[in-house]
Amino acid sequence: MERAEKSSEGKSLFEKVWTLALHRGFVIPTAEIYGGIAGIYDFGPLGTLLVKRLIDLWRRFFIIEETNFPVYEVSGATILPYEVLVASGHVDSFVDPLVACLKCKAKMRADHLVEEKLGVRVEGATVDELNRMIRENGLRCPNCGGELSEVTLFNLMFKTEIGPLGGKAAFLRPETAQVIFIDFKKAFQAMRGKLPFGLAQVGKAYRNEISPRQGLIRLREFTQMEIEVFINPKEVNNHPGIEGVADSKFRILTREGQLKGEEAVEVTVKESVEKGVVPNAYMAYYLSKETEFFERIGIPRDKFYFRHMMPEETPFYSGGNFDLEVELSIGVKEVVGNAYRTDHDLRSHMRHSGEDLSVDVDGEKVVPEVVEPSFGVERIVYCILEYCYREDDGRGWSWFQFPPEIAPVTALILPLMKKEPLVSKAKEMFRAARKSGVFVEYDDRGSIGKRYARADEIGVPVCVTIDYQTIDDGTVTLRNRDTRNQVRVKAELVPRILLDLSEGRLSLNALEALKG
Amino acid sequence: MERAEKSSEGKSLFEKVWTLALHRGFVIPTAEIYGGIAGIYDFGPLGTLLVKRLIDLWRRFFIIEETNFPVYEVSGATILPYEVLVASGHVDSFVDPLVACLKCKAKMRADHLVEEKLGVRVEGATVDELNRMIRENGLRCPNCGGELSEVTLFNLMFKTEIGPLGGKAAFLRPETAQVIFIDFKKAFQAMRGKLPFGLAQVGKAYRNEISPRQGLIRLREFTQMEIEVFINPKEVNNHPGIEGVADSKFRILTREGQLKGEEAVEVTVKESVEKGVVPNAYMAYYLSKETEFFERIGIPRDKFYFRHMMPEETPFYSGGNFDLEVELSIGVKEVVGNAYRTDHDLRSHMRHSGEDLSVDVDGEKVVPEVVEPSFGVERIVYCILEYCYREDDGRGWSWFQFPPEIAPVTALILPLMKKEPLVSKAKEMFRAARKSGVFVEYDDRGSIGKRYARADEIGVPVCVTIDYQTIDDGTVTLRNRDTRNQVRVKAELVPRILLDLSEGRLSLNALEALKG
Repeated sequence: MERAEKSSEGKSLFEKVWTLALHRGFVIPTAEIYGGIAGIYDFGPLGTLLVKRLIDLWRRFFIIEETNFPVYEVSGATILPYEVLVASGHVDSFVDPLVACLKCKAKMRADHLVEEKLGVRVEGATVDELNRMIRENGLRCPNCGGELSEVTLFNLMFKTEIGPLGGKAAFLRPETAQVIFIDFKKAFQAMRGKLPFGLAQVGKAYRNEISPRQGLIRLREFTQMEIEVFINPKEVNNHPGIEGVADSKFRILTREGQLKGEEAVEVTVKESVEKGVVPNAYMAYYLSKETEFFERIGIPRDKFYFRHMMPEETPFYSGGNFDLEVELSIGVKEVVGNAYRTDHDLRSHMRHSGEDLSVDVDGEKVVPEVVEPSFGVERIVYCILEYCYREDDGRGWSWFQFPPEIAPVTALILPLMKKEPLVSKAKEMFRAARKSGVFVEYDDRGSIGKRYARADEIGVPVCVTIDYQTIDDGTVTLRNRDTRNQVRVKAELVPRILLDLSEGRLSLNALEALKG
Repeated sequence: MERAEKSSEGKSLFEKVWTLALHRGFVIPTAEIYGGIAGIYDFGPLGTLLVKRLIDLWRRFFIIEETNFPVYEVSGATILPYEVLVASGHVDSFVDPLVACLKCKAKMRADHLVEEKLGVRVEGATVDELNRMIRENGLRCPNCGGELSEVTLFNLMFKTEIGPLGGKAAFLRPETAQVIFIDFKKAFQAMRGKLPFGLAQVGKAYRNEISPRQGLIRLREFTQMEIEVFINPKEVNNHPGIEGVADSKFRILTREGQLKGEEAVEVTVKESVEKGVVPNAYMAYYLSKETEFFERIGIPRDKFYFRHMMPEETPFYSGGNFDLEVELSIGVKEVVGNAYRTDHDLRSHMRHSGEDLSVDVDGEKVVPEVVEPSFGVERIVYCILEYCYREDDGRGWSWFQFPPEIAPVTALILPLMKKEPLVSKAKEMFRAARKSGVFVEYDDRGSIGKRYARADEIGVPVCVTIDYQTIDDGTVTLRNRDTRNQVRVKAELVPRILLDLSEGRLSLNALEALKG
């Protein structure tokens, strides 16, 4: 077993986590055997399990257990025709300023170049302003010192064509949201909907970034988990579940706080609505639910907050955007965007398609307003990897302290030695756990100590060891990954214990109390 | 409630099923408000639930419960660079013959045109042969009678470009399999693999079909569930789980049978391997497992069989392809492809990338051979809709008899009347079931009869009614969708009953025996 620590001196936390993620195949660079592609990654076996469990937990938390109003998932095409993206504004406005080196031909984000070289924020700057700043400050290519081209606007959508020879212009969707807006009326009618009405989607989105970077943080192909809640515009402060979360807290960095250079402050849902810190009750509801969710997936609540985006960062139609920002070793990163999109998208699609997307509410026709929480799966996965990474606690290897609810592998089933009847007993338990739907692994290679280390390295919460006492009295040992303590329990209880751990009904802390 | 039957006279089964699927939002044509795009569909709320449950069951059945050898899921990029698709052969060979009308500009498959007009099979015909057949028989445009162009080959991959301005040529993946081949070595090493070693993937694939048609059958964007099992070439008949399925049966249509015009015959796994009906034990294993799986999702075993593809339908490198074909009202359709891909793909990627993709087996280096079962999700969904569709059993409405394991909604929770305390009791049960992870719905709109009808129409297995007796003695009624019988049970047992139904541990037939 390679121990992550051996080569870890002098490495940044990002490098250590990323190295381990690549080494254990959480992540595999796409087409690596052909040199890879910047900004595109595959998830290997452990990464796929982690992503799947994260998405499943998200679904349970935000969809299945949402009983205040209906939320249904839809699953739309990733190829969308030109007309949809014209209406959404992406054909005109989904652009980044691009500058190229006239000598080495390197292409880069003009705004990033100016920010890095001049140390100023240029959010919202026009092409002319960027050109002026580059000229006046004599900026040149950071790679070769060559002269730079004029700044142009580059559209970030991947283009393609549907059908043969001069087919229909189309794009890979730049966000999952548009599918929901164009399907809204149909889904609403099919489900005999009433407002508020939520439509969710988990799926891929694509942005042809000029400079993808930082592993999973800025990707060209990525996964979104999104909900659009359609609300009667007269009822945006009348959330049917708001009483249940009135005292729940979340941390917020207000616009005023940002201007004054202050830190995020904690508010309750009730306060935030009453004082107008957030634009409506739905926004407050989701900021508190996201706080709960992020704690559950292992991100401490003092390491993230919601930043009210400044006016120059906010689309003209928005009633207020609130980004969940996480403090990472590589800087603060936005991982969830919460947007009060008002009725902008539905009205825009009504105008462009000529279809009436309004719905009846008590005999009146209204175009619903929308509040949207939108989660970036890959960025959240990186947050989990970084916040669950552990070293230097004396065990001699680095490891992941994944919450059992999202751990890729719930348990390792081990015969003490590769001998009968231990092997048969262990395999029997392995099959029983798998049959109950829990992803466990069987391992009989190497010493018990090495197997524990391998389990820790991929964040397996429990090791179940079958030894000679098992044959005598039917008990097995359970090793708690976090405390490294062991407890003996009856073998027949193990499948249920593992199921409860994997579904969040049992915490790892409670393991040692299970004796007997 | 609209009754499907009212307007169903004279409609074909396909039309009836498709109309109901569109009406209840199982399926929504992508960008319908802009006129739609041929061959691209979204799944609405019920369709997404059905797809999700189908995929979950497939995962449990083919991955989690597979304890004979390791199978891990990976999740790769949908955008692949040019080099990968050159090596896979898709740049050169993933083509269909295209012919255009010189007058009305309609584009169509040249082979389909010839087959339809001349009633001959032209599988494997060259461009020259197709041109000759069109000229010699004076074929003209079926739409306008215009003259036809020469036949050309059209590549079915969607093209795009990665990065700005003269970026890298890339394609949307035409099959999920290639991601697995290029990631194989990395995943194998990361998981400390031994052969046999399976890698699975569930995800989108894309084919820019010339003439998409028949709803979900021929799509431009679709979903595959695939496993590639990597096997020691010397051990292809040494499947570690073969004994357990030796007597399992599947139906097969041999090449000889096809030439003689015979029907499919039933064989056991053991016979099929011994008599060489299939090329190896892995193929036999999957054909029997697929038979079991298809019965579980509601397709009767006498309605599908495996067809050994004829030599002219089989790629040159294949050791034998076996398509699972289902008899549908619109003809026989392939819904699973089983391919013995040998070591072709790995060797091709080795040659093109220069990387060594062989693995160590007992001190020897081998390039594994591959057996691949590949499932088309949308086609299977259509099979389920068609085979679960019911009418004319005297209830006055059409309905879906989905197996409870895949039914989109497991139960409808109904207060007998919209009055307290019935409503509160019903909502309490609704929340408890959702909390246990079962997707149930609450419905208090309209008469009980209408609500039962709505439940049937979307295939809900059980209706739970809270009535005044519930308040007295704590019992509720469960209505069995299939028999329409009712049984009273204690309310506190209901969440467990619904969970067991939804996870396949309890059959709907057993419901009436639960009394008390």
